[in-house]
Amino acid sequence: MNTENSLGVAVLGTGRMGADHVRRIERLISGAHVAAVADVDEVRAKEVAGTVGPHCAAHTDPAAAMDAPGVGAVLIASPGAAHEEQLLAALERDLPVLCEKPLTPDPQGALRVMAAEEALGHRRIQVGFMRRFDREYRELKGLLASGAHGRPLMLHCRHRNTVSHPLFTTEMLINDSVVHEMDAARWLLEQELTAVTVLRPTPSAAAPEGLGDPQLIIFETSGGALVDVEIFVNCGFGYQVQAEAVCEHGTARIGDAHGLLANTAGRWGGEIADDFTGRFADAYDHQVREWVDATRAGRVTGPSAWDGYAAAAGCAAGVAAQRSGQRTEVEMIERPAFYSPVSYVRTN
Amino acid sequence: MNTENSLGVAVLGTGRMGADHVRRIERLISGAHVAAVADVDEVRAKEVAGTVGPHCAAHTDPAAAMDAPGVGAVLIASPGAAHEEQLLAALERDLPVLCEKPLTPDPQGALRVMAAEEALGHRRIQVGFMRRFDREYRELKGLLASGAHGRPLMLHCRHRNTVSHPLFTTEMLINDSVVHEMDAARWLLEQELTAVTVLRPTPSAAAPEGLGDPQLIIFETSGGALVDVEIFVNCGFGYQVQAEAVCEHGTARIGDAHGLLANTAGRWGGEIADDFTGRFADAYDHQVREWVDATRAGRVTGPSAWDGYAAAAGCAAGVAAQRSGQRTEVEMIERPAFYSPVSYVRTN
Amino acid sequence: MNTENSLGVAVLGTGRMGADHVRRIERLISGAHVAAVADVDEVRAKEVAGTVGPHCAAHTDPAAAMDAPGVGAVLIASPGAAHEEQLLAALERDLPVLCEKPLTPDPQGALRVMAAEEALGHRRIQVGFMRRFDREYRELKGLLASGAHGRPLMLHCRHRNTVSHPLFTTEMLINDSVVHEMDAARWLLEQELTAVTVLRPTPSAAAPEGLGDPQLIIFETSGGALVDVEIFVNCGFGYQVQAEAVCEHGTARIGDAHGLLANTAGRWGGEIADDFTGRFADAYDHQVREWVDATRAGRVTGPSAWDGYAAAAGCAAGVAAQRSGQRTEVEMIERPAFYSPVSYVRTN
Amino acid sequence: MNTENSLGVAVLGTGRMGADHVRRIERLISGAHVAAVADVDEVRAKEVAGTVGPHCAAHTDPAAAMDAPGVGAVLIASPGAAHEEQLLAALERDLPVLCEKPLTPDPQGALRVMAAEEALGHRRIQVGFMRRFDREYRELKGLLASGAHGRPLMLHCRHRNTVSHPLFTTEMLINDSVVHEMDAARWLLEQELTAVTVLRPTPSAAAPEGLGDPQLIIFETSGGALVDVEIFVNCGFGYQVQAEAVCEHGTARIGDAHGLLANTAGRWGGEIADDFTGRFADAYDHQVREWVDATRAGRVTGPSAWDGYAAAAGCAAGVAAQRSGQRTEVEMIERPAFYSPVSYVRTN
Repeated sequence: MNTENSLGVAVLGTGRMGADHVRRIERLISGAHVAAVADVDEVRAKEVAGTVGPHCAAHTDPAAAMDAPGVGAVLIASPGAAHEEQLLAALERDLPVLCEKPLTPDPQGALRVMAAEEALGHRRIQVGFMRRFDREYRELKGLLASGAHGRPLMLHCRHRNTVSHPLFTTEMLINDSVVHEMDAARWLLEQELTAVTVLRPTPSAAAPEGLGDPQLIIFETSGGALVDVEIFVNCGFGYQVQAEAVCEHGTARIGDAHGLLANTAGRWGGEIADDFTGRFADAYDHQVREWVDATRAGRVTGPSAWDGYAAAAGCAAGVAAQRSGQRTEVEMIERPAFYSPVSYVRTN
Repeated sequence: MNTENSLGVAVLGTGRMGADHVRRIERLISGAHVAAVADVDEVRAKEVAGTVGPHCAAHTDPAAAMDAPGVGAVLIASPGAAHEEQLLAALERDLPVLCEKPLTPDPQGALRVMAAEEALGHRRIQVGFMRRFDREYRELKGLLASGAHGRPLMLHCRHRNTVSHPLFTTEMLINDSVVHEMDAARWLLEQELTAVTVLRPTPSAAAPEGLGDPQLIIFETSGGALVDVEIFVNCGFGYQVQAEAVCEHGTARIGDAHGLLANTAGRWGGEIADDFTGRFADAYDHQVREWVDATRAGRVTGPSAWDGYAAAAGCAAGVAAQRSGQRTEVEMIERPAFYSPVSYVRTN
Repeated sequence: MNTENSLGVAVLGTGRMGADHVRRIERLISGAHVAAVADVDEVRAKEVAGTVGPHCAAHTDPAAAMDAPGVGAVLIASPGAAHEEQLLAALERDLPVLCEKPLTPDPQGALRVMAAEEALGHRRIQVGFMRRFDREYRELKGLLASGAHGRPLMLHCRHRNTVSHPLFTTEMLINDSVVHEMDAARWLLEQELTAVTVLRPTPSAAAPEGLGDPQLIIFETSGGALVDVEIFVNCGFGYQVQAEAVCEHGTARIGDAHGLLANTAGRWGGEIADDFTGRFADAYDHQVREWVDATRAGRVTGPSAWDGYAAAAGCAAGVAAQRSGQRTEVEMIERPAFYSPVSYVRTN
Repeated sequence: MNTENSLGVAVLGTGRMGADHVRRIERLISGAHVAAVADVDEVRAKEVAGTVGPHCAAHTDPAAAMDAPGVGAVLIASPGAAHEEQLLAALERDLPVLCEKPLTPDPQGALRVMAAEEALGHRRIQVGFMRRFDREYRELKGLLASGAHGRPLMLHCRHRNTVSHPLFTTEMLINDSVVHEMDAARWLLEQELTAVTVLRPTPSAAAPEGLGDPQLIIFETSGGALVDVEIFVNCGFGYQVQAEAVCEHGTARIGDAHGLLANTAGRWGGEIADDFTGRFADAYDHQVREWVDATRAGRVTGPSAWDGYAAAAGCAAGVAAQRSGQRTEVEMIERPAFYSPVSYVRTN
């Protein structure tokens, strides 16, 4: 272990997600350590810093955390509204960033972040679309990229949560949940989204008052594919994320049963995960693992600011479609050459 | 065996489907026999009659076949365009009819048939929607009817054929294929269709010139449910019919793997049927079996003329939606009391 | 329907199994009818005959039922101890017989029946090993017969019942349950059984006092294959029959999940049948269907008296192995040329 | 990152397995680093040390590597014949050890190692049975430990390799392959093995001359359970490890399908891993992860020398059973109190 090479990370935001990233970096990720944390809640920041050790400083000012000694990279896990300012501050310092989704809550903010990154002259930002690091998604991506099944024509997605948070809103169905399918569809199909339609059945009686749950979201893409997403955040039975690609010569599905299969009391089957932590635990680990590796090698290989922008633009269209009941086109700038595609599939 | 009770059936149309029904009645269905056949192709009619025996007369005139000695019921397997006249002739003779779908190619013809049946004062017509007799569909119907999973909110359907007939048209995607999902959705959900939208990705390179294959068809229903149907008649890999009901407290899927599971050469899995004959063979048998039983008991228990009309109306909206690219409402008359629902689930 | 050709069947034994066969012949099997029934319980015989109609006579003497007018074939569903006498009586009258398993309870009785059939000069007896008519077993048989996976080396079998009958004995584990695997193994592998070993874990607390349940039964075969059978008649969770063939280039398994798959309350999966009637309903129907067809064509195509004898010999060795705790060789005569193999796989 | 706390590991043996552990410790395992390596092949040792950096010394003498500066633990990945001497040397130095299986090739060597560890007064040795760290095995262990399905009665295991190494012998079927099931059965059932029987079908034509492949191995256990293991190292189709526990109220199976499911060319299904690296990659990582954590906390939580001894004793009985064709009792000493059981299931 060459300790001089260990990557010092400033973690901004020490809520559930941030604290989990601190634990991951400290306990699972060799070659990296948490050098500083920041949170508006000072007590919380100190508590999380305490799990790391005396060498990890706790700040309330994100800029101070980024300027702490030994910081070589930033992980942003603060609320979305704070992202733009923190991203710009990180770019100012030329620090590599892993930013939890959304890049910014709106396409405009994302464009400003992209402009700053482009002005810097090299890419620094990775967005936390962790499905790109999930084993099954990568298998599906690999199959599609191989061309063995021909061109993808449709993508059927299911995104089901057991129960929604009390403050969950209809817009959050798009911005917090379907945003994952927006990125996954773009990444799997290697196409941009061009239009979104939102179809709404009569809500489930199990949905909280005012929440239009479930919904069926349709994406159209630049390559003429159709994507349909069932989003159902109060399905009651568990957490389930599935995707089925329909190609010219075959289909492929991920997210079905895996693991232990039991017979008992007249039924066979298995357990469904309760939430995303079980389903995507390995994906989160791989995401940080690869980001640390790439960062130490001076590269950015994961989802870029462009991907964050595209998700923000897709969500803006999705919420508009939800409100108007109409098919809504996704408005995006042309892809800057600076953000030309790189291979996201792990090569080892 | 009380031979006086055996049901004499006139089979109209002796093409592939008609000949298969003749074989089924003669070889598999106790309590029934083929008393006469009719086909515009005299040679073909005689050939099929010959497989039954000398007591089975071959006609070119459907009316003559219905008037032949010993005929107590009619099975219509002629082309759809001939159905209306044959159905009206059967009703004139007060004969029970099992009519292959479509009841008639258009809603107007269906309404005329319904008027004639209603004038007769009792129901005589059953339409050949054989999925209602399939074991898996019945299990799904039973689950939905039990209310154990709560109210159905969405129904995701997949309807895939290996390759389409050379003469298959874009309209036939609706009229010949999706019509099955139209009836299945109505039957499973116990709701009428209210609107149809047709979404079309760039066609598969494997689709014949001019055929917009695959398509994604959306039905809205009177109870506020959404139904999406992937219709893909040149999927290349096999015949596959799947349906997944999304309910308030759970989902349920049919049409997945069944039968033999093998490991070989680096892959596990099973075979996919080549066409519908393997997948629904038992359903065809059960359909005729139950029709014979009900007919001998003086009842009609299967899909009615109303169901055939609803399918015709749904198809008309579907083709219109296909042409206009717009969401199209399904136009239907009020359900006559004469066609009040009966339980279609086998009680034994 | 050529009524002179309809096959009149005398059903001997009108208990649960016999009554079910009467229902099947009358309601599902075209080309056959029940001409007479016999049972030692006169009330029961009359009751079952009454379900058929006045032309079906009820007898207490099996011979009288076989001599009744219109009888052209015999179906034996009486207790095993009565089989030998009834089979010999049927052979005396040169009547085709479908005999529920066991052919006879012991190998000696089976040899006497075989001698009588051979003296007659043509085969008349079919034994009720209905698994040979099950769709999945036939698929497995077809795969093995094709040679696509190479020579079969092992066969892993699971035979599970929800709960055993109060009078079920340890010997019945072999004679009533494992006998099905004995025949299935012989039929699938096209090899005779040569030795049986019975291994007994500590019994389940759910097993009745004195019943050594579950057990692991090992068969060795004439072709050097190994067969292991888990027999567990108080597994508590449902009825499950599975078989996995391990071949030189692949494996194949039947009896896994089929039908409706549901997600609910944190679990995915499906129902397990409660008993064999659901699992093998179609197999029973196909068995009678094919027997009627073959009988009317003057042929015997199903499991023969030789197969019944082999099962009896296997059971005798199995019970001996159970008692001695030792590997026990199966003692059998050479296969008479009269019983040379015929293809059991349906050719249509 | 508190670098003083990082665990310096001496890796003994730098073949395929040792080199992979070096890579894992350096790249995946935070809180540990490779301080020294040793291999009889000096070139190879230097090559592997070179992948770590100049601070990692390469030795040909294992003792020298253990005495290198900064070494706080030992990972033994040398051939089994070298284990005893290296284990004793590590114990002399009171160093914690993770020893690849087998602990020693024979029960006698294992007893000597255990005596040395016990003389030391505290436990230092963990054996590399990595299945105990596999997610699915842990789920199965958890289900059995919960008692939800009642007492386990049988365990059916399948252990299949695509093709065996040219030098693979019949004894290695036991010592290299079935040894994993021996440990897994002991761990899952929490019972010792008491007897082993080896049953051998006619070998597959695909097996190399002289290799009796496949075989069916039966274990009896101290709690009266039966374990059957199909070992088939030339199955040809892929790497597959499955286990099905049969309990009083239910069964549970692991090792079936997981991941991507595809339809293409008339078949549905998924890929089978080519070898163990794909199937158990995460288990290897977790194993080292937890060993590092426990070691730094001064504890031993994984498989102990006792477990290694039990595997050696089981293998000795297995090879004897293979040779004699007879059921062979497993000879073991009483379990020393020093090796009293600890919970192996991760508590976080």
